Formats: sequence, C-alpha cells, structure tokens
Amino acid sequence: MALKVYADRMSQPSRAVIIFCKVNGIDFEEVKIDLSRRHHLTPEFRDVNPMKQVPAIVDGRFKLFESHAILIYLASIFPGVADHWYPADLFKRAKIQSVLDWHHLNLRLGAAKYVFNSTLAPAFGLPLSQEKAGESEKILSASLKKIESVWLKGNGRFLLGSSQPSIADLSLVCEIMQLEIVDAKDRERILGPHQRVLKWIDDTKNATRPHFDEVHSILFKVKDKLKKLKSEEGASETAVRSKM
Amino acid sequence: MALKVYADRMSQPSRAVIIFCKVNGIDFEEVKIDLSRRHHLTPEFRDVNPMKQVPAIVDGRFKLFESHAILIYLASIFPGVADHWYPADLFKRAKIQSVLDWHHLNLRLGAAKYVFNSTLAPAFGLPLSQEKAGESEKILSASLKKIESVWLKGNGRFLLGSSQPSIADLSLVCEIMQLEIVDAKDRERILGPHQRVLKWIDDTKNATRPHFDEVHSILFKVKDKLKKLKSEEGASETAVRSKM
Repeated sequence: MALKVYADRMSQPSRAVIIFCKVNGIDFEEVKIDLSRRHHLTPEFRDVNPMKQVPAIVDGRFKLFESHAILIYLASIFPGVADHWYPADLFKRAKIQSVLDWHHLNLRLGAAKYVFNSTLAPAFGLPLSQEKAGESEKILSASLKKIESVWLKGNGRFLLGSSQPSIADLSLVCEIMQLEIVDAKDRERILGPHQRVLKWIDDTKNATRPHFDEVHSILFKVKDKLKKLKSEEGASETAVRSKM
Repeated sequence: MALKVYADRMSQPSRAVIIFCKVNGIDFEEVKIDLSRRHHLTPEFRDVNPMKQVPAIVDGRFKLFESHAILIYLASIFPGVADHWYPADLFKRAKIQSVLDWHHLNLRLGAAKYVFNSTLAPAFGLPLSQEKAGESEKILSASLKKIESVWLKGNGRFLLGSSQPSIADLSLVCEIMQLEIVDAKDRERILGPHQRVLKWIDDTKNATRPHFDEVHSILFKVKDKLKKLKSEEGASETAVRSKM
C-alpha cells in the first residue's frame, strides 16, 4: 500500500510535503482534504488526524501529522532521499532542527496571521482586521529580517550556508509563497526590502522544479480570482458613485 | 571544555534543558542570562545566540539554540542518555517530533501569552490585558484538552502511551509549570478540569526528582513575592478605603 498524503494545496505545509515527495520520487497517493468544504472536520479524517489539520500521512499502519515531523520521517525512512534534505551528520541536523523550531512562532505565526487578516478572512465568513494584520506584519517583517541576517548568512545559496536545500528551506519558502495572494502593493512593501530572501526563494524554486511551480499553481489561480473579485467590486463602487 | 548552557530558570524551555542535563548526568556549566536585567541583549550573548533568546548552548565550537533542537542534540550526542528520552526507533521518534512541533503554536503560545498578559506584563513595564489574557486562555484550554484526549490517550503514564518520559513530556510539563505564578483561582479554573494532565505532571515530576523541584524552586519564590505584593496592595487599598 502506497503512502497516503492527506493535503490541501492551499495549505503551505501541505505543499511542502507534496513537493518533497515529488522531488524525491517517493510513491504516494494524494488525498485531497478540501478545507474550504470542511473536509478536515469529518469523522473519517479525524481518524487520520485527531487535530483535524493538514497535512497528515498514513504509511501502512503508521499515522503521522505536523509537517516538520512528516518531512523528517520521510527523509529518514525512504532510502532514495538525498542526504542534503536532512543530513545524517548530527551537527548539521541540529542546526536544521533549530531553524524548523524557530519557524513556528516567527515566520509561520507572522505570515499565516497576516494573510488571514489582510486577505483571507472573508472567505471564512470573518471580517478583515487591520489591527491584527498590522500586528502580524511586524512579526512577519522581523522574521524576514532574521532569515536574512542569521539563517542566510554565509556564502551558500540556501539556509545555514548550504549549497543544496534542506527540508527547512522547503518549509520556510512554502510559507512565504502564500504572500502571492495578498495585494501586490502590500507584498512589495513586505518582501521588497529583503532582496537576499527573494534570491533564496528563486534558488529554492529552481532546485525543486518543475514540482514547485506545479504544486503552487493553485495559489496563482486564487490570486487571479481575488484580483477579478476586487476589480468587480471596484467597478460596482464606481457605478454606485456615478449614481450619487 | 564542558558544555555551556546559557539559561534563565524563569524561562520554561531553559528549565527543561537544565533538568534534562541533570537527570542524565551530563556535565555542564550553567551560565545565567538574567532576562529581567536584559543580559540577553548584550553583544557577548548575541555572539552565542543572534536571536537573543534562552536557552542556548555552546559545546566546544558548536553553538545551538531553540530548546527542542538542543534536547534532541544532547540526547543524540551523549551516549549516557537513556533511549526513552528520544528513542532510536524511527516511528517512536516521529511521534515525539509531532508532539514537539504541535507544542509551539498551541500549548506554548497559549500558556506564555496567558501568563504574560494576566500576571507578568507589569514586571516588563507593560499593562496587563484582560482581552489578550482571555484570547490566550482559549488557546491554552484547548491545548490542555488535546493533551488529554490525543497525546495522553492509552494506558501509559506519559505522552504517546509511554511508560517512561521523553523530551516531549519534559518540554510540555515545564511549560505548564509556569502557571504556578498566576492567581490560584485562575490556575484552578484552567487546570482543574484536566485531572489526567495533573496526574501526568506529577508523574513527570516524580520521574525527574530531585532535579525537577530544585530547578523549579525559583518559580515558587516568585509566586511568594507576587502573593506578598498583592496582599500589600490589598492592605493599602483597605487603608485608603477606611480613610474615605
């Protein structure tokens, strides 16, 4: 029985796991858990992950959730995975673990909350919040600054001065990619000052092509949809104003 | 040169790392970084951890921060550490990693924000916030419920149904212990409904005695200090009222 990956490609850690499997030639079945249709709340999925979150995997009788735990497990259990993704060397491994642990309450907290409160909330029946978006933008920008000054220090193209990507590069870059769906001006304000980060995103994309682009294509569809909605709103506002 | 552990025992992940070293007979030098005196902001400490946070370690020429990364590193590098802390078995290890990853944006986020906004903020020159305390109590209580229904499921005394503690038990229990310094009524309201969690805290204490109590003694001193301050405030309020 092949590995099952329960995922929604709109979820950034889901994308990281799917790309990892594809890049490393791991045979898997992708089971779509559509978050917008609340598939994660069904009793069937609760049996896979009682925390009701994606991604999650089932490998034979073994069930696992939390994307970093999944990436480490896959890198450890599948012999075909190249060492650079999660090196056997304990010192290199410890440093990668440090990036992954740091990620949760920094880049992830900032980016996920920013995108939700600036853009996505209405899709979940909640209002946008300028205040919360502002608070999380501070965490996000501070995190991008730390990525540049601490994690990307050195001569390598990837985190920790490496010449090849690890699971940490994949996880963090997938997180930042969700900024594609926010307003272009906001994205430019947040990412623009971090040229080193932008270069690293490109390097990670290039190292994982064509899978990176294919798995992220959903984001660009959503981006187009949001743009269309916005211009329709703009047009109807103009129409309303012209009647006033 | 012995391992150096840079820590402030008021920080819950610092306590977890110190207890781990003591329980496992790891020879180390504890370097106190007093957060209340801003020792973490000095140039000397920035050289140890550019993120300016405790705990951090220096082992020979190797520097590392983030407590989970440190615990995994120590368990992997010191041959005297018993297997149950971080099992060699990849399946058990993956499950522990899943608990550790889950921790950051659940128990840790809820507990740390709750304690800060309900109790500690004035010590850092900031006002208490009932609104933020309320928000974080929701995350904290939901996390305790998940610990009980998911992580403590099964017959074992410890997380994941184990009969002996892992680094995940130590990390999570040290996080919950900081609730000792909040108002007794609030602690009872939050922890009271979770008898299975209280039993597990006791089991973890017992498995790591006498080090657990010794390293946590600072918390009980702060608790007494806060109680005294509160009763003095109460007394002066009564005095003011009697003059009105």
